[in-house]
Amino acid sequence: QGCEGDEPVASASGEVDPYKPILFGYLQSQYDYNFDGDENENSFKFKRARIGVRGKVDEKFSYYFMLEASPFIGGDDQEEVYLMDAFVTYNADNWARISAGTYKQPFGLELVTPCHMLTTIERSVVIDQLVAPQRDFGLAVFGGNKYNKFNYAVALMNGRGLKFKDNNSKKDIIARATYKVTNFLTVGGNFRHGYPKLNNNEDSRTTYGGEFLAEFDKFKIQGEYIHDTGAYQAGTGGGCGIEPIDLDGLTSEGAYIMASYDVNEKFQPVFKYEYFDPDVDVKNNIEYLERMTLGVNYFFSKKVRLQLNYLANIETVVNVDNDALLGQIQVKF
Amino acid sequence: QGCEGDEPVASASGEVDPYKPILFGYLQSQYDYNFDGDENENSFKFKRARIGVRGKVDEKFSYYFMLEASPFIGGDDQEEVYLMDAFVTYNADNWARISAGTYKQPFGLELVTPCHMLTTIERSVVIDQLVAPQRDFGLAVFGGNKYNKFNYAVALMNGRGLKFKDNNSKKDIIARATYKVTNFLTVGGNFRHGYPKLNNNEDSRTTYGGEFLAEFDKFKIQGEYIHDTGAYQAGTGGGCGIEPIDLDGLTSEGAYIMASYDVNEKFQPVFKYEYFDPDVDVKNNIEYLERMTLGVNYFFSKKVRLQLNYLANIETVVNVDNDALLGQIQVKF
Amino acid sequence: QGCEGDEPVASASGEVDPYKPILFGYLQSQYDYNFDGDENENSFKFKRARIGVRGKVDEKFSYYFMLEASPFIGGDDQEEVYLMDAFVTYNADNWARISAGTYKQPFGLELVTPCHMLTTIERSVVIDQLVAPQRDFGLAVFGGNKYNKFNYAVALMNGRGLKFKDNNSKKDIIARATYKVTNFLTVGGNFRHGYPKLNNNEDSRTTYGGEFLAEFDKFKIQGEYIHDTGAYQAGTGGGCGIEPIDLDGLTSEGAYIMASYDVNEKFQPVFKYEYFDPDVDVKNNIEYLERMTLGVNYFFSKKVRLQLNYLANIETVVNVDNDALLGQIQVKF
Repeated sequence: QGCEGDEPVASASGEVDPYKPILFGYLQSQYDYNFDGDENENSFKFKRARIGVRGKVDEKFSYYFMLEASPFIGGDDQEEVYLMDAFVTYNADNWARISAGTYKQPFGLELVTPCHMLTTIERSVVIDQLVAPQRDFGLAVFGGNKYNKFNYAVALMNGRGLKFKDNNSKKDIIARATYKVTNFLTVGGNFRHGYPKLNNNEDSRTTYGGEFLAEFDKFKIQGEYIHDTGAYQAGTGGGCGIEPIDLDGLTSEGAYIMASYDVNEKFQPVFKYEYFDPDVDVKNNIEYLERMTLGVNYFFSKKVRLQLNYLANIETVVNVDNDALLGQIQVKF
Repeated sequence: QGCEGDEPVASASGEVDPYKPILFGYLQSQYDYNFDGDENENSFKFKRARIGVRGKVDEKFSYYFMLEASPFIGGDDQEEVYLMDAFVTYNADNWARISAGTYKQPFGLELVTPCHMLTTIERSVVIDQLVAPQRDFGLAVFGGNKYNKFNYAVALMNGRGLKFKDNNSKKDIIARATYKVTNFLTVGGNFRHGYPKLNNNEDSRTTYGGEFLAEFDKFKIQGEYIHDTGAYQAGTGGGCGIEPIDLDGLTSEGAYIMASYDVNEKFQPVFKYEYFDPDVDVKNNIEYLERMTLGVNYFFSKKVRLQLNYLANIETVVNVDNDALLGQIQVKF
Repeated sequence: QGCEGDEPVASASGEVDPYKPILFGYLQSQYDYNFDGDENENSFKFKRARIGVRGKVDEKFSYYFMLEASPFIGGDDQEEVYLMDAFVTYNADNWARISAGTYKQPFGLELVTPCHMLTTIERSVVIDQLVAPQRDFGLAVFGGNKYNKFNYAVALMNGRGLKFKDNNSKKDIIARATYKVTNFLTVGGNFRHGYPKLNNNEDSRTTYGGEFLAEFDKFKIQGEYIHDTGAYQAGTGGGCGIEPIDLDGLTSEGAYIMASYDVNEKFQPVFKYEYFDPDVDVKNNIEYLERMTLGVNYFFSKKVRLQLNYLANIETVVNVDNDALLGQIQVKF
């Protein structure tokens, strides 16, 4: 969890002292051009702007402390710097790393992918809408690493997101497991059962998802399906600045499939198709969305990436001019 | 002052360059369970989440710069990161360290104890209610260190807390002195005289306190009494997220006594009894509070501490179900 | 751009690894005494309190990431920490350093002077009022360094300031060029053309400025004139906590001249005269302002500076008691 993968405490610059805090972060400067059919609004902005510190304090305990400084990622009322991922981890062994604090709910391949390693600029809409709150307070156990066939995570979380204490007495449970079936194919399953509503221990919500990741040499293809039904609390925050749709009482679903190819070390084209249906019980739902993303990633070096994405949004019921061209330069430190 | 004691510029990792900034902080992941007589609300949260930098710039000048990132410590409207302690210090000599900036008012043993070294999870109610604003802008002189029998501090401060300029022309004066009477007994006195009200140079407030600290080998006992009378400005902020009681025109007092025992290097049980009376002139005051705290501290290592506290709140007039069990894991870096 | 000059990635402490992030910042503790003709309000406060990280990630790319933590610099609703300057730079060569992110609009000598190197505590009013938004999102090219006779900057920016996306489709263009005419004289010109109003691609604003800097051994004199006309959007934020005057539809101008003398390495007296006229078309404008600043700078060491400034504000139409005495201690790390 957090935005670093399996090596949270290795210093890029070869620090000798393993217990020294590591200062790290990244900056995503972005330019958005909207084909809105009118004046084509466009803007320079940040996507993410993160700075933090992580490290080990002894053989068993480590910590992670990350601030988000972008005014555009935490929703409308979040223009200042706020604490994003922060946790204390007890590394019992490879099959039990216990973390207490805030982190992403362990649900779905694209969600658990660190934000600076996403293949497209935007996460899939189904993830941003259904895995909300995306980050939460809780206690979790993580097991396995990238060399193991099997990996898992189980979390007990408030279900209210980053800025509030829980105000019902029930907790959400989120679980995730992946298995490397063959050298090139990994499949996974995700589950969440929670009580999202304020002062309400009755109305529950159930979410499940399935995923796969196939890697053939330089070609990579991955996909996910998520299904969600039950209660929903508006205002707990969608992912990454998206406008959350009120899903209370609805059954929703969505999926994406994404293919990328490493032409060489620097150049990687990507194509993603996705859909999201906030209410499967209604025909010709006006909020039903399909999107195709066509993109290229260019890696100037290990720490510098340029992304260009064209987002073609397809409304099947009433056409809306809302395609967009996004360009982002990211530097990691 | 600040959250570090007598050695603000020593690097834990043995830095060679004495003028390099030191990155430091700590994270307190907490779980609260409230015996509220109804559904027993409970929540994962942070208590404190602090990150900062401190150091020396030359022989005489040092600095301290600490951010608070927890959304639960600065009051209701403080969900973002804010500047907590920040000051420039001119170290003239051991008897005159002059600091300009923000820091805790130098009033009371438990208040000046660094927040990551408190023996119980919560400070005593009397301190959080009466030493408000807990942090303030000002100019102060500190003298003495832990090897001296005598220590003192005198501060001239705005009296309005962290986020505002003073808007009357009077300043608050706060003074503190401690004396090590014998090897095992230290006593201290504290005083504050201020003008808390906005646009008001007339209505003043006077606070004084007495304290003792007795250490017999592995057994430690400490206590404080605080008395406060006069004007009060609502909204200047109590300590550490407490709900401040409006004390305007009232005479208030409170005290605590706390005993702890180091069973061994890792395990330390603690007991605290305290009371707070916001209005000593009213019999059977419904806001009169007694609390007993029963706790254990477990030190996994020097940098990792687990605290468990049971808070028994005793209302003598009308009983309220408001006991609580708090668990906190702290990592320092 | 940013608050560091020509050497953004050199570590003060002689780091060996050129790609290690450099933690840096400064703290300005200040005391203001206002001769308001009544009770003479006075307050301890911060001016700026900045902390950040900067560095190179490879031969060509560098980054800069700076937070402002002072509650008094970003305007009334900005009491928390926010992201100030943050950009990714591609260092093509000395004549083309391309930066994407947020930084100060490259307009005017005193504005581009790093905030910790200003000769007086306050920038000139004409700059804070007319170069607004002072910081903005954009893409810019910078050329030249302090050893070149010619330096330039051209920026394409949103025109809406730090916390918002642009919401018209036009961008602002800002340009600046300076030329060292002789060893002791540098002259410069600045230009901005923008569309400040929300949802408005019609109403434009044009600003131009001229400047000179003359250095004769220990004596330094500099001056600027700025002229501005056209549309204005209230709420885009003036500079450094100043109360912005609504200039919509007005033609405004102002200038300053400032002289300083290095008596020795530590002691530097300074005198500044300035005026600002928000509406040149009105005679005896009540908002017309003249100010004389008399100050001394004392450098305890390279990293510690004390500033004392007396600000004599002269209203020619109706006299107002608003002189002020400001004292500031700054530590850089």
